[in-house]
Amino acid sequence: MLHKRLPVAILGATGAVGQRMVQLLADHPWFEIAVLTGSDRTIGHPYGGVVRWILDTPIPERAAKMIVQPTEIVADVAIALSALPTDVAREAEPLWAARTAVCSNASAYRTVADVPLIIPEVNPDQLALIERQRAERGWQGCLVTNPNCATISAVMPLKPLHDAFGLQKVHISTLQAVSGAGYPGVASLDIIDNIIPNIADGGEEAKIESEPRKLLGRVVEGRVIEAQIAISAQVTRVPIIDGHTALIAASFAQKPSPEEALAVLEGFTPPEIVRHLPSSPEQALIVHRASDRPQPRRDRDAGRGMSASVGRVRACPVLDVRMVALSHNTIRGAAGGAILNAELLVASGIVS
Amino acid sequence: MLHKRLPVAILGATGAVGQRMVQLLADHPWFEIAVLTGSDRTIGHPYGGVVRWILDTPIPERAAKMIVQPTEIVADVAIALSALPTDVAREAEPLWAARTAVCSNASAYRTVADVPLIIPEVNPDQLALIERQRAERGWQGCLVTNPNCATISAVMPLKPLHDAFGLQKVHISTLQAVSGAGYPGVASLDIIDNIIPNIADGGEEAKIESEPRKLLGRVVEGRVIEAQIAISAQVTRVPIIDGHTALIAASFAQKPSPEEALAVLEGFTPPEIVRHLPSSPEQALIVHRASDRPQPRRDRDAGRGMSASVGRVRACPVLDVRMVALSHNTIRGAAGGAILNAELLVASGIVS
Amino acid sequence: MLHKRLPVAILGATGAVGQRMVQLLADHPWFEIAVLTGSDRTIGHPYGGVVRWILDTPIPERAAKMIVQPTEIVADVAIALSALPTDVAREAEPLWAARTAVCSNASAYRTVADVPLIIPEVNPDQLALIERQRAERGWQGCLVTNPNCATISAVMPLKPLHDAFGLQKVHISTLQAVSGAGYPGVASLDIIDNIIPNIADGGEEAKIESEPRKLLGRVVEGRVIEAQIAISAQVTRVPIIDGHTALIAASFAQKPSPEEALAVLEGFTPPEIVRHLPSSPEQALIVHRASDRPQPRRDRDAGRGMSASVGRVRACPVLDVRMVALSHNTIRGAAGGAILNAELLVASGIVS
Amino acid sequence: MLHKRLPVAILGATGAVGQRMVQLLADHPWFEIAVLTGSDRTIGHPYGGVVRWILDTPIPERAAKMIVQPTEIVADVAIALSALPTDVAREAEPLWAARTAVCSNASAYRTVADVPLIIPEVNPDQLALIERQRAERGWQGCLVTNPNCATISAVMPLKPLHDAFGLQKVHISTLQAVSGAGYPGVASLDIIDNIIPNIADGGEEAKIESEPRKLLGRVVEGRVIEAQIAISAQVTRVPIIDGHTALIAASFAQKPSPEEALAVLEGFTPPEIVRHLPSSPEQALIVHRASDRPQPRRDRDAGRGMSASVGRVRACPVLDVRMVALSHNTIRGAAGGAILNAELLVASGIVS
Repeated sequence: MLHKRLPVAILGATGAVGQRMVQLLADHPWFEIAVLTGSDRTIGHPYGGVVRWILDTPIPERAAKMIVQPTEIVADVAIALSALPTDVAREAEPLWAARTAVCSNASAYRTVADVPLIIPEVNPDQLALIERQRAERGWQGCLVTNPNCATISAVMPLKPLHDAFGLQKVHISTLQAVSGAGYPGVASLDIIDNIIPNIADGGEEAKIESEPRKLLGRVVEGRVIEAQIAISAQVTRVPIIDGHTALIAASFAQKPSPEEALAVLEGFTPPEIVRHLPSSPEQALIVHRASDRPQPRRDRDAGRGMSASVGRVRACPVLDVRMVALSHNTIRGAAGGAILNAELLVASGIVS
Repeated sequence: MLHKRLPVAILGATGAVGQRMVQLLADHPWFEIAVLTGSDRTIGHPYGGVVRWILDTPIPERAAKMIVQPTEIVADVAIALSALPTDVAREAEPLWAARTAVCSNASAYRTVADVPLIIPEVNPDQLALIERQRAERGWQGCLVTNPNCATISAVMPLKPLHDAFGLQKVHISTLQAVSGAGYPGVASLDIIDNIIPNIADGGEEAKIESEPRKLLGRVVEGRVIEAQIAISAQVTRVPIIDGHTALIAASFAQKPSPEEALAVLEGFTPPEIVRHLPSSPEQALIVHRASDRPQPRRDRDAGRGMSASVGRVRACPVLDVRMVALSHNTIRGAAGGAILNAELLVASGIVS
Repeated sequence: MLHKRLPVAILGATGAVGQRMVQLLADHPWFEIAVLTGSDRTIGHPYGGVVRWILDTPIPERAAKMIVQPTEIVADVAIALSALPTDVAREAEPLWAARTAVCSNASAYRTVADVPLIIPEVNPDQLALIERQRAERGWQGCLVTNPNCATISAVMPLKPLHDAFGLQKVHISTLQAVSGAGYPGVASLDIIDNIIPNIADGGEEAKIESEPRKLLGRVVEGRVIEAQIAISAQVTRVPIIDGHTALIAASFAQKPSPEEALAVLEGFTPPEIVRHLPSSPEQALIVHRASDRPQPRRDRDAGRGMSASVGRVRACPVLDVRMVALSHNTIRGAAGGAILNAELLVASGIVS
Repeated sequence: MLHKRLPVAILGATGAVGQRMVQLLADHPWFEIAVLTGSDRTIGHPYGGVVRWILDTPIPERAAKMIVQPTEIVADVAIALSALPTDVAREAEPLWAARTAVCSNASAYRTVADVPLIIPEVNPDQLALIERQRAERGWQGCLVTNPNCATISAVMPLKPLHDAFGLQKVHISTLQAVSGAGYPGVASLDIIDNIIPNIADGGEEAKIESEPRKLLGRVVEGRVIEAQIAISAQVTRVPIIDGHTALIAASFAQKPSPEEALAVLEGFTPPEIVRHLPSSPEQALIVHRASDRPQPRRDRDAGRGMSASVGRVRACPVLDVRMVALSHNTIRGAAGGAILNAELLVASGIVS
């Protein structure tokens, strides 16, 4: 598709999500890492010397030798992938967006009206916000966000069901992996042989209760009309490394039977533009019929961590339909999600 | 209360729950282990020589020396505590109940109309079924059951709320410890760094969706009128040793505010007859205000494993009120629950 | 190298090691699965319908459809890979070896004089035993074994050190993953938040204390002269999924300094014939300089699970040199080891 | 023994070890917590409001209400228990020791010549150093230390063997719990499904390789003559909460058989003065005959966490005798060890 690879910056490259971006871009067909930024402690040093690498594959050699740059100085790249902490993102992302396309995993701007919140398989139409964003803010670049890592586990199967049956209410209980808290994140003394029934003191639940409304909304004249869905989230941290599980119970305008819901889930195909992106998995949504799946350790790596999984689709005695959903929180739910958004920007011609 | 300790049999004493009964009765003020029964492999041998002891305290010396007896031969004891597997329980418990009081942790008879299903703090009034049970079956003894180990985590806080506000619908997501599956139970290869989103292929959920209706029912003329509650349960197995967590969302006839719900929970006191039983904890229901509690490793042992805990009481955007409940599954939820029922039989004069 | 792929049987294909063999052979350039054998329960059924698949990738589709065959009937294949339990292996492997080449992961014949015990990087010269084996036993095929999964973690770094300095005494403490016990194997109730300081009631230690003597022996006139090494092994089971760690302290005839030992380890290259086998990793032995490596989760998958790792090479106050070694127990230490032996048989012309 | 309880200060009361001290002294028959000290952040606030309580029992109510004091101001107490970090201990402990008896768990002064390093069951005779310590330093109080939490697992069984057979060489491999690193300590991302083969970058091994020489030394004219023992330690961090396991192989001047070693271990009795201290367990050293013990989860709480355990006593093919030892690292190996030293000071008349 491209004659030469586009230069990409990774903002906040030393953290857990930044490391995943570095790992996933090591052999990317469209993108080439041109800039890695980090905090004061790391600036001016080779990335490999200052990063506390926590992934299970070695640091890519080329990245290891790159000198870490300050986040404050906007570089001349085609795309900036942001793995910045929220407060740093709030300052730095607009600076970068003024000149280049920013695909951010941070939550700072997800709910802002003119900022697209995108899962490519779910709502690529929110790219339409960019025109207004550029006009109103005077940006040459743009800012696109991907949702919270637990939100995406739930929204992937809810999207086709919403389209078919009209989602009205949904109760989501999550079992979230420790990698979602970054590094060092959750202390082992807190989580071995234990469960913590809260994350970010209610903040995680607030995101899960609001983001799906924007993700499942409609774009009308450059604005998102949020879906009117009542959402309840109860989150827990569990002693596993990767993979967020969501137990979902939902009611719909047109009460589907479990069989009807299953048929819709199994028939889900992403929009044409998404299907051929380099990071798109062969199957966006894997539907399990085995009664004990999906399981994080056995299903999180499906589609190189980019496939979502759903199973145990059943009638619910309280709402209409129940199911169990899963996705890899640091790949599909963070670094890979931001990269997929970047690929979408290229495929749609916004970045070239 | 008693001049001498009552002789007690433990049926199925070598399994995980049977071991807990042996442990909990080692120094019991009212009961003395008189008989331990086991499977063919173990009969005729000293208990200490055939049991694969899995608890974290040593085998009580007296029990270790007792010779294991066959379950089929009814012994002359005041009470039989049953930790039998369901199929064995179905055969053996009526034989014992014909002569003595049986307090069973097995599920075989929980839903049978004339068999009390009792949590002493919740519904000691179901003891009233015993009269009819004896009359119709011609038993000198009786059969009383305690609920499933996950049911109890949810019902302890739901009881006072139901009394105050009229429970109508409840959604329960559980995170259950591996000890709930007995020994050897869950393979480590299945659960380390993993979650299994099902237990007993739907059987666990079926129990949680039916037992609370009987537990929260009313006794009218020797029969239980079940509470009309819609219950949805989604269960998971998680990599922790002990302690079942239940994420609960509920709606009530009289929509309580979270503050009203909290006030009722904090004001809960068990019936007078229960408060002074030897295994009754000082606090039947511990209400947590800290936003990250209850946690299994830190709260399961409260009240020597007999206290239930609840926290995160909040408004629910889908139903009315949400909360997180916890109890120790092999103590409060199994062995300790059966023993508490036995103590209730004594305190109420049914056994003497 | 080969014009068409050789037909291979996997004996005992439904167990943990058999599953790994099926997984690793799914896209093998030289071998094609022709036969899968299993126990009575599974014979006559499609493999995918009877296997309790425990790996983290899906069952290969072609294998899933194959009908499981009885182990007792020798099939017409080029190679049989054996993942049989010891007692079954003792009966079945000679039957197969009479007609075909058997590469066995079972321990039944490892210590028998005319049976090669081979790690291709360490002692391919034991292939020389096959001539005698065939002559004395009247076999057309042959029987070759690979060592215990913990033995290999230790022997990979000890081999070059032995060649250079003459190994005399070695103390090995292991921390072994639960997958080494097969499925269901270790009960989660025994190992979560726990260590078990024994495996197979001393049997694992007996293997680690004897197998290296044969592996590091010399072949003289078709017989193995075992290396005269004193070996002490203390094994433990730890709560991790894959990867056996060995803490090694060793003394040598020519007391090397840690620097000399490091230089030898870093200079290790396998024999030429081994380097180009399809399953040979790029690096047979990865030497870590970081002071907290190797770690099982971060290093077990190096070289697709076929590289061994070693680190913390230091002087020992009691013996001469200490180090920490690691390898993937079900890939390098079992299924992958047997496959590498099969590849060696082909490369050496014994199988064609 | 005492008419009223002695006032005690806990220095560094908010950390992991400090919390254990608070927990263990809640109902102590001899001691009463009079002062809790903490860092700048916590001074002037109620302990319960600033401590991040990580233990599995509630904060003792009385302690929760106490106002945290600065460590720099020496209070008028009978004994100060120090759970200070090493660098703070280096400054503060001499200030306190000038006026009162300090029992320290910190490593700052363990190896200093005039500072006793004591395990009461092993070497109470090092109390004899105090006289010289007071004379030379002009202290009214004194400073006594307890060893590293992994050292003690090994020394408890080595002491009686050394007395009987003369320890010469010992190789110690440890599997250490995460609580040994304090809070937050080990990141869950580093240790779930993983092993780390180093602690404190060699620092832990240095302690284990030196402290036993002082602990097993002889006191001659107010000075410790260290035991001449060659010690090799290889440490690992494993994913368990509490309990340090030590795999030990040792050689002795008089080569004992395993049976002789077992007889000595089973015959071990602590010095008379130690046996009746309030924190002394009924059995100082529990000798296991079962071939899969000791195990951390099942044996760490023996004797309320104060008993040491040893098992698998066997002949060693490289040295003379092997065994597996275990003790609770934050009770026996830290907080409980310091308290036992304090009790020893009282029983010996040094504090009154």
